[in-house]
This record gives sequence, C-alpha cells and structure tokens, in this order.
Amino acid sequence: MLASLPGVGPKTALRLGLNLLSRPAGDCAALAESLAVLHEQVGFCETCGCFAEHGRCHFCTDLRRETHTVCLVEQPVDVLMMERGHGFRGLYHVLHGRLSPVDGVGPEQLNMAALDRRVSAGIKELILATSATVDGEATAHYLARRYGDSGVNISRIARGVPEGSELEYLDEHTLSRALDQRVSWAVTS
Amino acid sequence: MLASLPGVGPKTALRLGLNLLSRPAGDCAALAESLAVLHEQVGFCETCGCFAEHGRCHFCTDLRRETHTVCLVEQPVDVLMMERGHGFRGLYHVLHGRLSPVDGVGPEQLNMAALDRRVSAGIKELILATSATVDGEATAHYLARRYGDSGVNISRIARGVPEGSELEYLDEHTLSRALDQRVSWAVTS
Repeated sequence: MLASLPGVGPKTALRLGLNLLSRPAGDCAALAESLAVLHEQVGFCETCGCFAEHGRCHFCTDLRRETHTVCLVEQPVDVLMMERGHGFRGLYHVLHGRLSPVDGVGPEQLNMAALDRRVSAGIKELILATSATVDGEATAHYLARRYGDSGVNISRIARGVPEGSELEYLDEHTLSRALDQRVSWAVTS
Repeated sequence: MLASLPGVGPKTALRLGLNLLSRPAGDCAALAESLAVLHEQVGFCETCGCFAEHGRCHFCTDLRRETHTVCLVEQPVDVLMMERGHGFRGLYHVLHGRLSPVDGVGPEQLNMAALDRRVSAGIKELILATSATVDGEATAHYLARRYGDSGVNISRIARGVPEGSELEYLDEHTLSRALDQRVSWAVTS
C-alpha cells in the first residue's frame, strides 16, 4: 500500500515500513488512528469547496477576510499555494477540476451551483485563477461568459514571465504574451 | 578543447573527436575554417548590439520593421528567443549584460551610449525586456529613470503565470504578482 503513494516506489516503501517497525508501537498506532479518521474529519467547505473540518472552512468563517472578492481556483491545493503569498485577503472558490470535454467534465461535474449562489448573493469581484493551460483558459472563458451579465467584475490573474526567470529559458508563447501584455511604466525619480 | 564547451564532458569530447576522425578529412577542414573566421565575420550591430555580419544586423537593415518601437534585452540570445514568437515587428537593443554593482557592472560597462543616441534620435516606445531577476528588475528601473524625461513611452514586459503552467507548481512570488496585476476581463458571448 505504501508503494502506491505518489513518489514512493518499492524501495522507499520498504524503507518507510522498516522505519515504522523500528519505532515504538505507539507511533504506528497513532498514525493508523489519524489515517482511520482522515476522511471522516476532513471534508469540503459547503460554501467554497476548500478543505474544512466542520462544515465551513477557516477562510469562510474568518471575519477579517474581505467577503466581496472571490478568487476562483481549480483545486484545494491551489488555495494553499495562493495563501503562501500572504497578500490576498479575499475568499476562495474551489471548482474541483476544470472543464475538459475530452474527459467528459462539463459544468455539472464541477462545484458550480455553489458559485452561482455566491454570485447571486452579491460579490464584487471574481478573480479567475484557473491554470494557464488550454483547459484552464477554456474554463476561465466559460465562467467569464456565464457571469458576464451578473454585474460582478471579472478578472484574470496576470500571465507573463515568472519571477526570477531569464528570457533565455522561457518558451515563445510566454514571451509573446509577456510582450503583448506589457505594462506602461512611469518611474518617478 | 572540445571538453571545455558547455554541456560537453570528457566522454562526449572523446566521442566527438572520434566521430570527426572517422569522417572525411574535408569535413574537419571545413569546420576548422568556419571556426577560424567566426570572430572575424560575426560581430555586433553598431546600432543595436545584436549579432551582425556586416556592421548592422538584419533587424536594423530590414525596412519592413517598425523603427519606432525598441525592445531592450540583456543578451543577443534573448533576441533569438523573442523572435521565435513571430509577433514582434519592432527593433531591438542589446545591453550586453545588466547592472550588477556586486560584480562591478555599472551603466558604463553596458551598451548604453548607443541607446542614448537612439532615444535622442526619437523612438516612440522602449519596451524593457530585462529578466525578472533582482538585477534585471534593477536595470529596468534604472533605464526607466534615465529615459523618464525623454518623452519616450516606457513599458515593461508582463510578469505572471507562464503559459501552460498550473498554479500548484509555481512559487509564491509569481502567484502574488499574478494576483496583484490581474487584468479585468470582459468576454462577449
């Protein structure tokens, strides 16, 4: 079973198993217990679809967060990534996937009904932070159309050259877009 | 000598050497001749600093290119990268480095005098396409200040999520910037 975890092959699985055997039985029992209740205790927030332990997640129940700005992402892990930046103070909405007609994923398969309710209830801005892949872009376009007449401001995260990178190592699509979407600069001395 | 080339270790150097030996002597002589005249024949364009065979490069002498828009890059290789996108019709200016006080690289060490002349001669837009590193950013800021009062429009290539990437694999700085610089979206159905 251990060998079926991502990044764990037969050799690492053996090493992990032997390590668990060499430790006090209590360690192993504690891990077993955590795993046994994992699916019972961690569910998804009924509002935003993020990980939650009790019905609603800690973002949706945090009164200090700005409730009018919603950042839409594909997966719960994307929320964790966005939070590492510490800059965003709004809420999230997790779609649990992206549109992919080839794989039979349409709007019905995604966490869309809850988003409809949130948009109807009145949010000011919906930030589309789906991935920069073909499917992610198609999903963003679909959402922009779906909520185009709802009065909510729709925005898309910026695409371009990632931080710390040199032009030499980037692909031509990123460079073309970075050039097309260049921003006017006025530096005051 | 072969082993001193980038990406070529002693084993590959031996393989290349043996390959050259196994081929007709003419092949080797042709390569030797090309190498002998490489530095004589390929120089830098006197206008923009890009690779050139005869005084001026084929961008600066191409009458179909828009001469009022200049894209500033750090290295000649960056020009080749930008050209792969096929979208840009303006000219380039190669700085041959970037400001780096730690390494003793100031404006005097860069291809700045030629840029001064081009800005004075009148260009409409200067696109700062230095890298998204600390030094690249500092160089862009320096140039924006240097030409701030010259009447030229200064712009910076967009930074954000690179094409084809998923949020999960990006660093927090890129995500923060992509969120901060999000663009308003209105999709017409």
